[in-house]
Amino acid sequence: MTATAPDPNALLEKHRERLDSAVRASATRGYYAAFDESPSPRVYGETAAADGKAAFEAWLGSAFPLDTPGSQGYVATERSPYGFDLGISYPHTTDVDPLIEAALLGMRDWRDARPEGRTGVCLEILDRLHARVFELANAVQHTSGQAFVMAFQAGGAHALDRALESIAYAWTEMTRTPSTALWEKPGRGEPLVMEKTFTVVPRGLALVVGCNTFPTWNSWPGLFASLVCGNPVVVKPHPAAVLPLAITVQVCQQVLEEAGFDPHLVTLAAENPDDKLAATLAVRPEIKIIDYTGGNTFGDWLEENARQAVVFTEKAGVNTVVLDSTSSFKAMCQNLAFSFALYTGQMCTAPQNVYLPADGIDTDEGRKSVAEVGAGLGAALEKLLGDDARAVELLGGVVNAGVLERLDAAASHGEVLVPSRVVTHPAYDDATVRTPTIIGLTAADSDVYENECFGPVAYLIATAGTDESIRLFRDTVHRHGAMTASVYSTSSDVVAEMREASLDAGVALSENLLGGVFVNQSAAYSDFHGTGANPAANASFTDGAYVASRFRIIQSRRHV
Amino acid sequence: MTATAPDPNALLEKHRERLDSAVRASATRGYYAAFDESPSPRVYGETAAADGKAAFEAWLGSAFPLDTPGSQGYVATERSPYGFDLGISYPHTTDVDPLIEAALLGMRDWRDARPEGRTGVCLEILDRLHARVFELANAVQHTSGQAFVMAFQAGGAHALDRALESIAYAWTEMTRTPSTALWEKPGRGEPLVMEKTFTVVPRGLALVVGCNTFPTWNSWPGLFASLVCGNPVVVKPHPAAVLPLAITVQVCQQVLEEAGFDPHLVTLAAENPDDKLAATLAVRPEIKIIDYTGGNTFGDWLEENARQAVVFTEKAGVNTVVLDSTSSFKAMCQNLAFSFALYTGQMCTAPQNVYLPADGIDTDEGRKSVAEVGAGLGAALEKLLGDDARAVELLGGVVNAGVLERLDAAASHGEVLVPSRVVTHPAYDDATVRTPTIIGLTAADSDVYENECFGPVAYLIATAGTDESIRLFRDTVHRHGAMTASVYSTSSDVVAEMREASLDAGVALSENLLGGVFVNQSAAYSDFHGTGANPAANASFTDGAYVASRFRIIQSRRHV
Repeated sequence: MTATAPDPNALLEKHRERLDSAVRASATRGYYAAFDESPSPRVYGETAAADGKAAFEAWLGSAFPLDTPGSQGYVATERSPYGFDLGISYPHTTDVDPLIEAALLGMRDWRDARPEGRTGVCLEILDRLHARVFELANAVQHTSGQAFVMAFQAGGAHALDRALESIAYAWTEMTRTPSTALWEKPGRGEPLVMEKTFTVVPRGLALVVGCNTFPTWNSWPGLFASLVCGNPVVVKPHPAAVLPLAITVQVCQQVLEEAGFDPHLVTLAAENPDDKLAATLAVRPEIKIIDYTGGNTFGDWLEENARQAVVFTEKAGVNTVVLDSTSSFKAMCQNLAFSFALYTGQMCTAPQNVYLPADGIDTDEGRKSVAEVGAGLGAALEKLLGDDARAVELLGGVVNAGVLERLDAAASHGEVLVPSRVVTHPAYDDATVRTPTIIGLTAADSDVYENECFGPVAYLIATAGTDESIRLFRDTVHRHGAMTASVYSTSSDVVAEMREASLDAGVALSENLLGGVFVNQSAAYSDFHGTGANPAANASFTDGAYVASRFRIIQSRRHV
Repeated sequence: MTATAPDPNALLEKHRERLDSAVRASATRGYYAAFDESPSPRVYGETAAADGKAAFEAWLGSAFPLDTPGSQGYVATERSPYGFDLGISYPHTTDVDPLIEAALLGMRDWRDARPEGRTGVCLEILDRLHARVFELANAVQHTSGQAFVMAFQAGGAHALDRALESIAYAWTEMTRTPSTALWEKPGRGEPLVMEKTFTVVPRGLALVVGCNTFPTWNSWPGLFASLVCGNPVVVKPHPAAVLPLAITVQVCQQVLEEAGFDPHLVTLAAENPDDKLAATLAVRPEIKIIDYTGGNTFGDWLEENARQAVVFTEKAGVNTVVLDSTSSFKAMCQNLAFSFALYTGQMCTAPQNVYLPADGIDTDEGRKSVAEVGAGLGAALEKLLGDDARAVELLGGVVNAGVLERLDAAASHGEVLVPSRVVTHPAYDDATVRTPTIIGLTAADSDVYENECFGPVAYLIATAGTDESIRLFRDTVHRHGAMTASVYSTSSDVVAEMREASLDAGVALSENLLGGVFVNQSAAYSDFHGTGANPAANASFTDGAYVASRFRIIQSRRHV
């Protein structure tokens, strides 16, 4: 540390109240937000939005100023789902040896900063990221395709809260063992007295593998959990969503350097789409922790092959809704339609399989047949998305060609109850925007609905009755996983059965959502994201298991 | 649960004070013991010792009354290191399918007992085991070869405290998330209010693989950590040390059944030495948690191959002592001699590699050459072990032929500074008892000292000086692992360097032990056993990481 470097412990004091609030909220699981989710000028100031947009636009076509050891030349791999190339080039990681060497160089100093110093630095990083939240929102919008407000919230404010939550859990875990203790064993004569010292040490190098759709929200919890526990972190972004993580790494490096630490404790490893850099890094003996969000194939591969590391994966599953009955048909349809439409269903938490009895469901508007439920959902979607200018603010853009292909193929898998529609973006001529489709199936079509169809496709699946719906829910989630589940029923028995089935299947349950809470949204400090109890994810944001194995405790002891 | 079954929550209340004390001690890491380590009649009553011995002897030659699904016939595989066959037969597990099926049958009821009910039952089990502590001590003595008092302490009282510690950690972890919470998000109009329920669910079936030397101390923490978190447990004992775990399983089943749960939530899977039952069980998809203590070969195999499970291993390493200087040559030699001799060095924590400068060390008795240090250790061993009747109470018996073979071979690896001696047991004619040997090596003999030589063999390794000693310590532990390390130095710089080296190597350090604390002993609630930060063990008894991933949390939420 240089003489003028700020004291990391002073950074902890600066952010102490925020940390304590996050720790408290994680324990009570009540509502808390450290970062305001409203992009309003009243909150962030009159020029914040324009300044952030300008900062984003200034990156376009430029070389992002990061120095990555082991890089050679540059890669530029991003194209906005709104229809233009970002043209931003990043150092191309071609040799991982110098990268790993550089990443490990500062580990001892970082370890010696102790939980207090590291937590202070990480909280300061969050603050600096928050100062760039509009720039980040634009970066998330034009890599993931999320609409701006969602990018601001999910990619900015909520992601910051999820990061703070993971830091809070790590803080609690690291500090639950005192740094010194006196052990006094009574005996016949003098007591035996030992003084003991306990030191948190890192596991080693951490790897974070980012995804295309939620480059910040899904990467930050693992990044900050590893970093605050003392581990250097190599961030390997999805080639289509680099900028949000490049900004992240830039901020991390700036704050680390200012506080007197090696900036290469956090590095960005950018690649071309076919480089397989994550696979190369993942099995290196120096890599001791891996956080991954993305498809099942590579996630399963990591769990199988990266045996030297503790691996946290969030993959995919078949998110399920069981419709039995409802007290408000309209509100139910609106709530579900919103969940289908939000970010074009490109969320790991978006519902896909909607089971309902073939003979219909009881509602406040009388009995509704399967066709009528389909029509109700169609009407709700039309209400939400009928106007193109409003629709794009909910749908955002289609993130990649794979989503379009699956959407196109969906029509052939069953009866098209609600067709998808091409939406014209009023501001971006070349944006790819689609509304969700709803496909009618029966319980016999398991070859279709047992596969995740990532994107704006939902299946309305006619069953013999709610008993079969629950049985199918329990069975498919147990075998294929799910990030979310929900039930609509006016019967407390059915709700109780679904709770029981959710415990068995290992998935979180939302019951009768009719208002402003949606099954695909989870709130930091209160809702666990993923459970680790079904094949869709082997971990949860954030619980004790998510942080406890990211460090070890080394003790020394001596007579007093 | 039957109508007359005791309320598991009442069991929690019964043991609540003990639980709270254990939670408190784990947090402060001060001294605590729930179970008295003194086998004195003043503590346990006049007849306790004789009653326990009689209970043990009543098992000899009998069929142990356990009903194990999937067993066929019986196996009798135990021989006391004191020179007689136990002749106790156990149900022979030949088919794991019925065993697994039976083990899982009671899982849902056990889950539904909640942390409160499960913790109450587990604490009651500890109480019942404590009531049989003299019987257990005899069982441990005559399977492991530990001398009686050690078997009573390490195999009884201390093992109970280690078990209680793991239950306390699991309790803290399971209850840090409330079972219900209210989430109230302020908004422009009415706040959004959600009620949330959080339920602890088990990972699945757990497997505990016991070892020959510490059948209870090393198995109970994992067994109770898994069980209290809701997981059924299959206990696979070492074929040479079945009885202590058979008694354990019997007590578990009795208490579970009394409390209205399926007794097969804990089962004993006994085998013949060549059955490879642990390997068969370990890769079954139903097995989600594995706790293993034993050799590196199978431990490494488990870590590599049991990919469907979270695997906790305690294996072996090269425990190291760095001698630089001392304020009391006599006390140092006595302390080290005790550590070499205790249970014939058959502890995963016993020191093996003693590095010291080739030109000797400074002591209160002047400079001591390597030969003089060897002689000092020899004299201390002679003082401890010169009298056979006293020697056997410290040494116990040689646990198996492998230890004898390594001891015999050790003489050819270097200069015999202190020879091993055959000790005649005054009570057991056929007991195999040996004193430790000390072999002189130099830093060049890495082919010898980089291998663990489990048993009563210590190496006195002459180095170029303390700098090289510390370098060798750091390097060999980093590559080969260690459960313990210690340093003797009057220089605070050297001690500081060793602390730093211990953080790098990932091993706990004992400094200048000259009194009644020994490097191979660790105290529950205060000392972490193993670190997970070097190759000797991937986990620690007990920290947050040891318990946090043994369960998951499933939530449900609804509007209020």
